[in-house]
Amino acid sequence: MKAVLVIADGLGGRITDYNGKTCLEAADTPNLDYLAKIGINGLLDPIEHGVRPGSDTAHLSIFGYDPKEVYTGRGVFEALGIGMDVQDGDICFRANLATVDDELRVIDRRAGRINEGLDEIEKAINSVEVYDAEIIYKSSVEHRGALIIRGEGLSYRITDTDPHKTGKKVLRAKAIERAVSAEKTAAIVNEFTKKVHDVLKDLEINRKRMKEGKAPANIVLLRGASIKPDIKPLKEIYGIEGSAIAGGALYLGIARAIGLKTIKPEGATGRKDSNLLSKVKTALDELESRDFVFIHFKGADSCAHDHDADAKIEFIEKIDNAIGYLLDNIDLEDAHIAFTGDHSTPIEYGDHTADPVPLVIAGRNVIPDDVERFNERDAMKGGLHRISGRVLPVLFGYCNFLDKFGA
Amino acid sequence: MKAVLVIADGLGGRITDYNGKTCLEAADTPNLDYLAKIGINGLLDPIEHGVRPGSDTAHLSIFGYDPKEVYTGRGVFEALGIGMDVQDGDICFRANLATVDDELRVIDRRAGRINEGLDEIEKAINSVEVYDAEIIYKSSVEHRGALIIRGEGLSYRITDTDPHKTGKKVLRAKAIERAVSAEKTAAIVNEFTKKVHDVLKDLEINRKRMKEGKAPANIVLLRGASIKPDIKPLKEIYGIEGSAIAGGALYLGIARAIGLKTIKPEGATGRKDSNLLSKVKTALDELESRDFVFIHFKGADSCAHDHDADAKIEFIEKIDNAIGYLLDNIDLEDAHIAFTGDHSTPIEYGDHTADPVPLVIAGRNVIPDDVERFNERDAMKGGLHRISGRVLPVLFGYCNFLDKFGA
Repeated sequence: MKAVLVIADGLGGRITDYNGKTCLEAADTPNLDYLAKIGINGLLDPIEHGVRPGSDTAHLSIFGYDPKEVYTGRGVFEALGIGMDVQDGDICFRANLATVDDELRVIDRRAGRINEGLDEIEKAINSVEVYDAEIIYKSSVEHRGALIIRGEGLSYRITDTDPHKTGKKVLRAKAIERAVSAEKTAAIVNEFTKKVHDVLKDLEINRKRMKEGKAPANIVLLRGASIKPDIKPLKEIYGIEGSAIAGGALYLGIARAIGLKTIKPEGATGRKDSNLLSKVKTALDELESRDFVFIHFKGADSCAHDHDADAKIEFIEKIDNAIGYLLDNIDLEDAHIAFTGDHSTPIEYGDHTADPVPLVIAGRNVIPDDVERFNERDAMKGGLHRISGRVLPVLFGYCNFLDKFGA
Repeated sequence: MKAVLVIADGLGGRITDYNGKTCLEAADTPNLDYLAKIGINGLLDPIEHGVRPGSDTAHLSIFGYDPKEVYTGRGVFEALGIGMDVQDGDICFRANLATVDDELRVIDRRAGRINEGLDEIEKAINSVEVYDAEIIYKSSVEHRGALIIRGEGLSYRITDTDPHKTGKKVLRAKAIERAVSAEKTAAIVNEFTKKVHDVLKDLEINRKRMKEGKAPANIVLLRGASIKPDIKPLKEIYGIEGSAIAGGALYLGIARAIGLKTIKPEGATGRKDSNLLSKVKTALDELESRDFVFIHFKGADSCAHDHDADAKIEFIEKIDNAIGYLLDNIDLEDAHIAFTGDHSTPIEYGDHTADPVPLVIAGRNVIPDDVERFNERDAMKGGLHRISGRVLPVLFGYCNFLDKFGA
């Protein structure tokens, strides 16, 4: 038996999306509707009713982990997602190359989306020496990267240096708990911030960019301080081997954190131009040798963040097409598929909301309900009713992958 | 965006209430039915399925707090509700003026619902001196009041002195945990009980009452020992300013505990003769400058405690009328309304039960379901399905008031 979990980021919406319909209702989705018809449907509160999920916490919860217990911040998933070797106790951050003036006031949070000299910059950042700890920086795409502070007696309980706005000064990291370890880590971060500016500001690539009127990458802004979460890999819990197919670093990182093999297939950009068929084909290849694949589609969320209903509808139809290809090439006598979103991102609000998302599970062991269309409204009438997180354990239940609790 | 939460105390019922119908089914409720029609409906377990809620614990849970974590007893809410200044560590009690004989046997738990000389009695009680602590008593309505014991090293983990029955002797308070602080507090309460009887029995007002054949208020019975709960005010969690409109001290007290401005409007008696329109008008006034109002209607619960189905039905229709006024004066493009009960109080049983209560939420961001009537039976088919507590976070989710958990 094979298990497939497909998460479409930001899938859910509101009836303010598009002429009284949600984007899912407005989209033409024959393949998702077919899944709804043969499967069991319901509403998913990604974490819990009345909780507005982040993408990271939502994925952890859907995978069966309790984010209130295991989540420490986003940085570690970004670091894992771009392939960094994260060790126990490492303090991990999302890192942005940015542009500041002489008073460390932020001029451009993305250093003009710099896409040159990234190796040189990475090397320079890694040359920064701080008190009693090691600095490890890795560049990913454009201005993005992740940073690890490695040493003894550190804590992730510190605030961001990223002011999250231009015109504001770079913030001093502060301890958010009364502990020597947090005070020490905040001091290291502040020392790093000062030193990295000194190192970067005179770097050749930055001089060149300034001559060309481009924003220099003369600071590193840090956010999402976190450590490797204390979670058991899926294999240890369920005894199964799985793969994750995604474009975005965050999702690849979460997948690594739970012990999945991670694959970013060609054309998987994590953006709305992403090649979804390539993802599905890679998933089908993986299923030859694996018990489980997780496929992540990012684009619908991005379109909704941009308040673009037409683009979100179009992307949902692109997802539907990819699901059609999956259904054409999988035998639901030997497999179960779960399809859902990690949260709603309504068009008007343009950000995650606490509204539940539709969920469908199909396959030989599922008792179908009467739902015939895949969307928020029809899902209300489904046989799964309304559940909080834990989609993967439910899917694995249908696949007979679960150990008994008790005897 | 504005949020309105209306809780009708003891709203839910059973089909044993009235000719095979619940009181809600028997009542004529065009306005609640309209809310059901335009909104999303479901069943609410105020705390959790299989838990029989008190009014205090149910309200905490509906407001999004976990009563298993934060609830210590009812006394503190009564003290807050009548405007007492409750400080950290204060041990708070519900206090009843009562009548005892010379052997401290209770003759009347309400001292003949005494409604005279309350200032004199309050002063006398506050004159009682006990070992190593301060006594602060405040009278509210008739025989009712609240008492605070303030001092170092006290504990709320002690039993009531109120025997809850006439003919029984006043109980000695006992520690319910092995701790010096609980032993000390119980000793203070017992010292207080003896001394307050000595002070009250010869008070002029009591001599006068005895001459007139009325029950003297010659003792103070204590119950619900508790401390200020460790809860974050709503403003700290959600960044919003709210007001509470209620008649009963308990509800005003809970509202104060979560940081709401509290208002007891004219005619709001907390009884079935309460002026509900006055409450709704006050709520509408508050909404001019506040993000959120909570309205509490008490009467349906009182009628059900009296096993009076006709009175409960009549009060539900009075609530419906008040909701009609609210709907006529609020724009659901700019506001979301949640309407529910804090628990069921069926007519036959005459007390709170664990049966779930119907819940409806309406407003621009809600996806309506097919439910067209507001009652226990139709709510079973609603799109909210069955949720446990946390109505306020769900309502605030629709209003876009929630912070993201995660990133």
